[in-house]
Amino acid sequence: MKKIKIALLGLGNVGRGVWNIINENGEEIRKRSGYDVEISKILVRDKDKARGVEVPEEILTTNYSDIVEDKEIKIVVELMGGVNPAKEYMLEAMSKKKHVVTANKMVLATEGEELFEAADREGVMFYYEASVAGGIPIIQGVNESLAANKIEQLYGIVNGTTNYILSKMELEDMDFDDALKEAQEKGYAEADPTSDIEAYDATYKLAIISSLAFGTKIRYEDIYREGITKINSMDIKYAKELGFVIKLLAIAKDVNGELELRVHPTLIPKTHPLANVYDSFNAIFIKGNAVGDLMLYGRGAGDLPTGSAVVGDILSVLRNESNLENYSAIKNNLWERNLKPMSDVNRRYYLRITVKDKPGVLGDITTIFGKNNVSMRSIIQREREADNASLVIITHHTKEGDLMNSVDKIKELDSLESVDNILRIESFNSK
Amino acid sequence: MKKIKIALLGLGNVGRGVWNIINENGEEIRKRSGYDVEISKILVRDKDKARGVEVPEEILTTNYSDIVEDKEIKIVVELMGGVNPAKEYMLEAMSKKKHVVTANKMVLATEGEELFEAADREGVMFYYEASVAGGIPIIQGVNESLAANKIEQLYGIVNGTTNYILSKMELEDMDFDDALKEAQEKGYAEADPTSDIEAYDATYKLAIISSLAFGTKIRYEDIYREGITKINSMDIKYAKELGFVIKLLAIAKDVNGELELRVHPTLIPKTHPLANVYDSFNAIFIKGNAVGDLMLYGRGAGDLPTGSAVVGDILSVLRNESNLENYSAIKNNLWERNLKPMSDVNRRYYLRITVKDKPGVLGDITTIFGKNNVSMRSIIQREREADNASLVIITHHTKEGDLMNSVDKIKELDSLESVDNILRIESFNSK
Repeated sequence: MKKIKIALLGLGNVGRGVWNIINENGEEIRKRSGYDVEISKILVRDKDKARGVEVPEEILTTNYSDIVEDKEIKIVVELMGGVNPAKEYMLEAMSKKKHVVTANKMVLATEGEELFEAADREGVMFYYEASVAGGIPIIQGVNESLAANKIEQLYGIVNGTTNYILSKMELEDMDFDDALKEAQEKGYAEADPTSDIEAYDATYKLAIISSLAFGTKIRYEDIYREGITKINSMDIKYAKELGFVIKLLAIAKDVNGELELRVHPTLIPKTHPLANVYDSFNAIFIKGNAVGDLMLYGRGAGDLPTGSAVVGDILSVLRNESNLENYSAIKNNLWERNLKPMSDVNRRYYLRITVKDKPGVLGDITTIFGKNNVSMRSIIQREREADNASLVIITHHTKEGDLMNSVDKIKELDSLESVDNILRIESFNSK
Repeated sequence: MKKIKIALLGLGNVGRGVWNIINENGEEIRKRSGYDVEISKILVRDKDKARGVEVPEEILTTNYSDIVEDKEIKIVVELMGGVNPAKEYMLEAMSKKKHVVTANKMVLATEGEELFEAADREGVMFYYEASVAGGIPIIQGVNESLAANKIEQLYGIVNGTTNYILSKMELEDMDFDDALKEAQEKGYAEADPTSDIEAYDATYKLAIISSLAFGTKIRYEDIYREGITKINSMDIKYAKELGFVIKLLAIAKDVNGELELRVHPTLIPKTHPLANVYDSFNAIFIKGNAVGDLMLYGRGAGDLPTGSAVVGDILSVLRNESNLENYSAIKNNLWERNLKPMSDVNRRYYLRITVKDKPGVLGDITTIFGKNNVSMRSIIQREREADNASLVIITHHTKEGDLMNSVDKIKELDSLESVDNILRIESFNSK
């Protein structure tokens, strides 16, 4: 039996998962990989902290040089999160010819290029399956299984926290604040939930996965991003009435050679497989020109699911160790691709506004739409109070720029009380 | 650019898909793999047959030795189907040190061992992603991404034809014969549909995938198999009323170290992700001890989806070519495992019977169940004709042997007209 020594950087949630998997599934790993994997050192900030896992004290260290200078350690597994010092530690490990596995979406989405280049230059392997959608094998799926496909569209529910919140709002009529509070109590949401609910987390993940799927470098700053904070119970109800559910989708499409990249709450038909992904589950739905529709569904977070992907990557390193010449993790520099501006995005829209309930309002709105090439598909009008009516309009396909111009004009109407929400609709057709 | 020559055996449906993918997605393949893949020969039975694909006549051959003796051909892709001569051709290719890719579930499920041994002995790679669930990357998923997991349970909808028929019966109230006829008209079912509707096809696939998932040799003859021909509209309706849908499931479970393997129509809760897999789509749901719940969903058949998996395998061969020492396709001989006899399987059951509508019948049945340790969870009674009543019983968890003993006794009752159907229920809990 060949033996391999590895080091973990960080012993938080995912670190504990990796420790437990390697120890509890040792027999599976040995038999399947032919290697005995030993965690020989773990970098921690404080050796004395209680961690809920039995790790021999002598393998803990607070000094990274104990790891990076140890020639016996072949793989460094970065599970610290954040950009610094995670990036520096990984670069240093690569410069010492150690392979690197990471679960860190933030460093990949922001500083990935430098890491990919370093891995290439140093001739080491760099794997990051756990950085997107936890235990779901989406990176290997796109990179290997679907390698013969032109990927045309990709839709992901890649943030468990927001999916949990939206599920509670839809299925249990909770309002946003209560659902967020429950997510925090259950440990699905952080004390500061900004990164999840404002969709930074989903945007990082889309940057990583779309770079691979479309073979081009995607900067996460170039992705249109909109969180779920402005979704309220009324939107959920109207959506349901119209046959939709609302999900935070990370979307990447090839539209005639231009890339459309956006992360925002989206109305999707109740009958679509993504509509039935509930609670903190993640799913990624892909259309490839050969494979057709494909969906991968599973746990996007948690110590063991994420640990499963990390240990899977460690085994990939072992499998490919003697094969470095054919290894190529960097598949995001194959093509130059133009990004489509949001104003050119062509979708159906959901528009909820409040108007003074008097004659002529609808006529005014119709006229504005007409002048801006926006056509209405359906409209729901409800009395809300004595004088005000709530209006929900679904448009036919229209350019986002035209819709936004219309909304600017509608805002100038005397009869308008408020524009309450504008949401995009995906119908998963060819457009 | 490195160039690689390959040969196809067969130019039917899947062969045309592979030809089209390699030619239409050539740029993707070259950039992603670093190889220019050329189909340099294709074995056909009749060179003059029209095929709906433009293949240069000079690469067609009816003589296998043109391929197997050609030293420039590095990979043989078997797309003929059937056991003979597919097996002999693959063995011969391996003996000439050619790598082999196949989409042939039948030869794998029946003669796989000989092929695995030959590949091992000859030091060539042998890939077969397309043999199970078409374009869905389940083989690589289980073999690589989930390699760090103990797989505890696996449930597959792996036959598109039967899923199409059951979908039509459920969603459009068709009866079995009409649904089968429509499936045949649409090309989803063969003129002789036996292999699909009697679940041979699904059983072959379960043998292949469970061998990998549980690391042990599974003979398809050892798997309990039951087709969908006895499902009728009444069962579909009762199931719906009780909150279930009926799917043909291929099931493999590790129950305290014993393997439970069975393929049969199954009642599953409407809320489960597998319940929403409709039409000819396939899906495989896995519980791993690290990854938790994972589902892969997509097209299980068709020229391009299956071709996507075949070309993915060709690219895997190229990726691993210089890495043969670490390549190991054979993961089905790691453990010896006992198979659980069907009589020990412990499930909830759906039992539909017709009885003469007279006093005491229910009491008789209850007494028989009581003597055999079967307890009832719910019962629906409907009048059917003047004298006969239809009775649907759902049991609590019970051993199949006990249930079958009860049914034997019930059959002896004077008041019994007929035992119409016995179906198993999966609730996807830990049992």
